[in-house]
Amino acid sequence: MTRAVVSLNSGSSSIKFGLYELDPNGAPVLAVRGKIERIGISPRLSIRDSAGGQLLEQEWPGEAGLTHADLLVSLFDWASTRLTGIEVTAIGHRVVHGGTDFVSPCLIDGDILVRLDRLCPLAPLHQPHNLSAIHAIARIAPALPQVACFDTAFHNGRPALAKRFAIPRALHDQGIQRYGFHGLSYEYIARRLAEVDAEMAAGRVIAAHLGNGASLCAMSAGKSMDTTMGFTALDGLMMGTRCGTIDPGVILHLQAEMGMAAKDVENLLYSRSGLLGVSGLSSDMRELSLSDRPEAAEAIDLFTWRAAREAGALASSLEGLDGLVFTAGIGEHHADVRARICRRLQWLGIRIDDAANTANAPLISLADSPIKVRIIPTDEERMIALHTLSILNGPQA
Amino acid sequence: MTRAVVSLNSGSSSIKFGLYELDPNGAPVLAVRGKIERIGISPRLSIRDSAGGQLLEQEWPGEAGLTHADLLVSLFDWASTRLTGIEVTAIGHRVVHGGTDFVSPCLIDGDILVRLDRLCPLAPLHQPHNLSAIHAIARIAPALPQVACFDTAFHNGRPALAKRFAIPRALHDQGIQRYGFHGLSYEYIARRLAEVDAEMAAGRVIAAHLGNGASLCAMSAGKSMDTTMGFTALDGLMMGTRCGTIDPGVILHLQAEMGMAAKDVENLLYSRSGLLGVSGLSSDMRELSLSDRPEAAEAIDLFTWRAAREAGALASSLEGLDGLVFTAGIGEHHADVRARICRRLQWLGIRIDDAANTANAPLISLADSPIKVRIIPTDEERMIALHTLSILNGPQA
Repeated sequence: MTRAVVSLNSGSSSIKFGLYELDPNGAPVLAVRGKIERIGISPRLSIRDSAGGQLLEQEWPGEAGLTHADLLVSLFDWASTRLTGIEVTAIGHRVVHGGTDFVSPCLIDGDILVRLDRLCPLAPLHQPHNLSAIHAIARIAPALPQVACFDTAFHNGRPALAKRFAIPRALHDQGIQRYGFHGLSYEYIARRLAEVDAEMAAGRVIAAHLGNGASLCAMSAGKSMDTTMGFTALDGLMMGTRCGTIDPGVILHLQAEMGMAAKDVENLLYSRSGLLGVSGLSSDMRELSLSDRPEAAEAIDLFTWRAAREAGALASSLEGLDGLVFTAGIGEHHADVRARICRRLQWLGIRIDDAANTANAPLISLADSPIKVRIIPTDEERMIALHTLSILNGPQA
Repeated sequence: MTRAVVSLNSGSSSIKFGLYELDPNGAPVLAVRGKIERIGISPRLSIRDSAGGQLLEQEWPGEAGLTHADLLVSLFDWASTRLTGIEVTAIGHRVVHGGTDFVSPCLIDGDILVRLDRLCPLAPLHQPHNLSAIHAIARIAPALPQVACFDTAFHNGRPALAKRFAIPRALHDQGIQRYGFHGLSYEYIARRLAEVDAEMAAGRVIAAHLGNGASLCAMSAGKSMDTTMGFTALDGLMMGTRCGTIDPGVILHLQAEMGMAAKDVENLLYSRSGLLGVSGLSSDMRELSLSDRPEAAEAIDLFTWRAAREAGALASSLEGLDGLVFTAGIGEHHADVRARICRRLQWLGIRIDDAANTANAPLISLADSPIKVRIIPTDEERMIALHTLSILNGPQA
């Protein structure tokens, strides 16, 4: 039997997963990856091998009633018949919020699950879906070790000031703090950067995770020092459908003067703002970049202007800058967005190699650029697998 | 008769005013200044001459029912008996919000007053008090020209991107925009800096208005390019009792998960946060700097950390920085706060002369500092008087 670990990322309408076989050295090697999408609408399961070859496409048309748990049962059924010869020894989960207590990955037991449940109010749109997968697997395979990997954990070591809002101390002590997210992505980037370019990794680096969700992380010697997301995944950069930083007075105004209910404001700021709201067209950077409408251009412009503005803020937190890393969907694939952000950051000493940037090359700064700029594809699933293994194997010497 | 103009700043519980006599060249010279405080509690009027000599101290103990209008009548009565030989030819008012329509000072008539009233929902805590003084004086002295000077106007020329939140276009078009405030202060600073140091004024300068309210303004050649306040005076820097920038998700959480009413959230973020909230002791920087409590130190630390962080953001908007100007209560008088902010901005090329800083000298950077740092006392009343005169005199050749 080949041993393997599974990483699992369960969201509101999707479940993504990866199965990693362990090589003779115990290192994880991706064997199978897949996703279940459109949960609650018309679920669709797609599984591929590590080379991208299709292993399964299945749809449940119109089966809006199928829950995350139901679909995980289907997935386990498929795995038990098709993945013979593989022994899954643990499942690692992305858990968006670790609160103030969970500052590193941990093995889940009943007590911990209760404590994680209590954190749902801190991330009501994400945490319940993360936990529902854990609950479901505890029923399907009660003996299988499950590991929680937190999106907040990487930011735990930041200076105390970076965690604090300017609100009464009592609220801070009750957990209303700047946690930061995308931590599994940043941790992976920090680790990968150390392999690729140890000198750069030892310096002051801003990592730009630009996907449908987007944030920046200021790292010094691979440790998070500051980040643009705060208490929720709504803060900081402009995103696909989220507003990012916005004057709190806007929310009070929408409620008091425009009569909007809190739920409607939440929906507005999470789902109808960002690139979608400003363009009026799409939340998808690819679609916007192909559009010739001025609203599309303005949305992209605002995205890059704000990213550069926040990069200036994080450079101040780091008291200088040695490197910049782009990652995630937009960061890895949109040369024009990178070029615009870098152009706005020329004043910091960033000089881009246009050809390398257009080619999505690993190193996109010119040789004489005082600040190095790299593209590193993120891999949160792999980071989860690595954490899961380290918990399974116990502390290493 | 000596001609004079009055500048008037009417807030929720106070009215500040200055009377400027016109010298033979028509330039305003401060003759009398004063304030009415504790309106709605136990009003107190204090009037001084330009040298600070006391002209009147009057109290109305326990007269909580006296309105702004009642107290302005008292003020006019005093002026008409004591300021004989002076002819007040116009009154200029600070009006906090000009919306998208009012982008420069203007003579007030009935129609304009109706339009200014319509902007009250954009600044419900400030605008009604500004306008109540205008209404009151229109009754006391109907023939006296009144001029509205807007705190938003100086920021009107910013690039379009700096005015936009990442929310649906329709809301932007309805006026939910980043206006910016403290404009009369910044305009005065820009004008004064051009007199004091024309070279610095021609460059990229951040002005730091650090008072009980606090913001930064990024100026290029004396024009506003970006600022930290947005739709309301709640956004941006940490302030005496205001939170500054905060994750919008915090507000949604306080309401949905902690059951707070919108009014209570407003009160929390405007009146119980900032230095007061973090220290748990005081909103007053002077008191905090004298305290030996760690909470006081933490509040000051967070204030300076955030100011430096936002200065990095604005340096990015300016694509570099040539100068920094401190103004307003904290900015003019708190050497330690300035020193801490400047130390965090050393990476940008700021080098402070500690002796000059301790002495609150006009120029506090070292001769070889790549970025010049100055202290310029602000004078919004004078700016209002200048605007009022320019409206009165019509466009100059």
